Amino acid sequence: MTERLRGGPSCLLGPGDDAALIRVPDGRVVASVDLLVEGTHFRRDWSSAEDIGIKAAAQNLADIAAMGAVPTAVLVGLACPADLPVAWAREFTAAFDAECALVGAVLVGGDVSRSPTLTVAVTALGDLQGRPPVTRSGAEPGDVVALTGRLGWSAAGFAVLSRGFRSPAVVIAAHRRPAPPYAEGPVAATCGATAMCDVSDGLVQDLRHIATASAVQIGIETARLEIGPKLQDVGRALNVDPMRWLLTGGEDHPLVATFPSAASVPAAWTVIGHVREGEGVLVDGAPYPLPGWDAFRGAR
Amino acid sequence: MTERLRGGPSCLLGPGDDAALIRVPDGRVVASVDLLVEGTHFRRDWSSAEDIGIKAAAQNLADIAAMGAVPTAVLVGLACPADLPVAWAREFTAAFDAECALVGAVLVGGDVSRSPTLTVAVTALGDLQGRPPVTRSGAEPGDVVALTGRLGWSAAGFAVLSRGFRSPAVVIAAHRRPAPPYAEGPVAATCGATAMCDVSDGLVQDLRHIATASAVQIGIETARLEIGPKLQDVGRALNVDPMRWLLTGGEDHPLVATFPSAASVPAAWTVIGHVREGEGVLVDGAPYPLPGWDAFRGAR
Repeated sequence: MTERLRGGPSCLLGPGDDAALIRVPDGRVVASVDLLVEGTHFRRDWSSAEDIGIKAAAQNLADIAAMGAVPTAVLVGLACPADLPVAWAREFTAAFDAECALVGAVLVGGDVSRSPTLTVAVTALGDLQGRPPVTRSGAEPGDVVALTGRLGWSAAGFAVLSRGFRSPAVVIAAHRRPAPPYAEGPVAATCGATAMCDVSDGLVQDLRHIATASAVQIGIETARLEIGPKLQDVGRALNVDPMRWLLTGGEDHPLVATFPSAASVPAAWTVIGHVREGEGVLVDGAPYPLPGWDAFRGAR
Repeated sequence: MTERLRGGPSCLLGPGDDAALIRVPDGRVVASVDLLVEGTHFRRDWSSAEDIGIKAAAQNLADIAAMGAVPTAVLVGLACPADLPVAWAREFTAAFDAECALVGAVLVGGDVSRSPTLTVAVTALGDLQGRPPVTRSGAEPGDVVALTGRLGWSAAGFAVLSRGFRSPAVVIAAHRRPAPPYAEGPVAATCGATAMCDVSDGLVQDLRHIATASAVQIGIETARLEIGPKLQDVGRALNVDPMRWLLTGGEDHPLVATFPSAASVPAAWTVIGHVREGEGVLVDGAPYPLPGWDAFRGAR
């Protein structure tokens, strides 16, 4: 993998030493770590090395974007079975690298090890560019709730793959390759978002995180969540209400945030609900009791 | 694990959000990532949860120290088998936390996942406090080579455990719980170290990294490497020349560095050799052809 590691504008010292050195002009650095474990988070018979490279990068870059920050540098630990083809690692790294390049982040370091279980550990660092972080705890009664990015597609693709189907290609591709709206994280921060997170556990579940951290109640209206014709078709074919994928499906990594008013919501975002005094999450005025989304692991 | 995560002086926003936020007054941050995989880097029948927590922290904090930096923040990904006792994870985290506290670093975030293979992914961040990083590439002909910290003890402990023995306790403890001289990294940087790394692959192997990166030859003299009476005893008992442990044993994580002169070598360091024009590493004037140290994996 080492030869694919590279430095960039934020990288003062790249791979090959005991540690990397990254420029942090802001005086603060945002950092998150995520594990992807074969069998828990991905299956090599369902996803290519490229798919998994994109997914590993996307879910970590989305965490940084969800703070309102711009991802700058990434470190990767790759634990590989002895029989992992070298080509797999190359394709994984190239795709990972390309996904990071979309946001200007660079792979600055890593570690490679043997393991019976293929495991990817990603650390992403980001820059707030002088802004305060957008945490989960800032939502206030009176705020509006808004969403940007694809939602429910990954869950639909997972449902299709789980039944052994191989089409429609577009929802399977959405499951394999999330496309989070990275740039909208800093946009939301600039527009005054009061709380934000990426949707990785499912919309209701992640809104619950915001509601709990902010000590508020969040209500959303399903009429404001658009189910496109493609998800309607897949829902009919599988005899599943596609709204369930939108409300509980994770892994698309759209961003959900609260804003002080409808007027402050950026153009690419859709208002889906409101913040009130109270606790928990209401969907169309009622509780929506659901386990979180947890690929391959069942309910949490 | 979450309840054991905590913030500290460098931590502006700790666990519980999409990402942590860490203070980086220097405008640059040092970052490294390391994996520890059960069966590759540790064995639960040889090492307790506490031992592994200390080892996981130590090897990463040593990487930061080896740049001349002070570790400030750490993120941990823990992939656990379903049957891992909760007490194991608690003891691991407490020991990890305590080791980080030795240097003032705080656990700011993490991720927990299921995996058939117990795996620990550690990311450590550090602060150079305004100093330039001490890389592997700055050694110059005429420099002296110096070492600080315990060397060969972990390898001796590993040899003892490998033969099924349970004593002497002191070398087994050294294998289980490395005690890198963290503070000496910044000290060496302040004293003008020209190149530095921690010894994790074995002294000869790691000096080779410096020699290659700096395009110099490094010569060391075994007469300057002190083998204490305990390692002499263990060597006799196992019929092994203990010098081999000092030259090839990794995992003690002492620091080795080059300095412009003997006068600039800090008090806690021992001069063990010299830098010349040329390439490679000479031990007592001759090449020392050896595989690297690679616990449980055999030669690299």
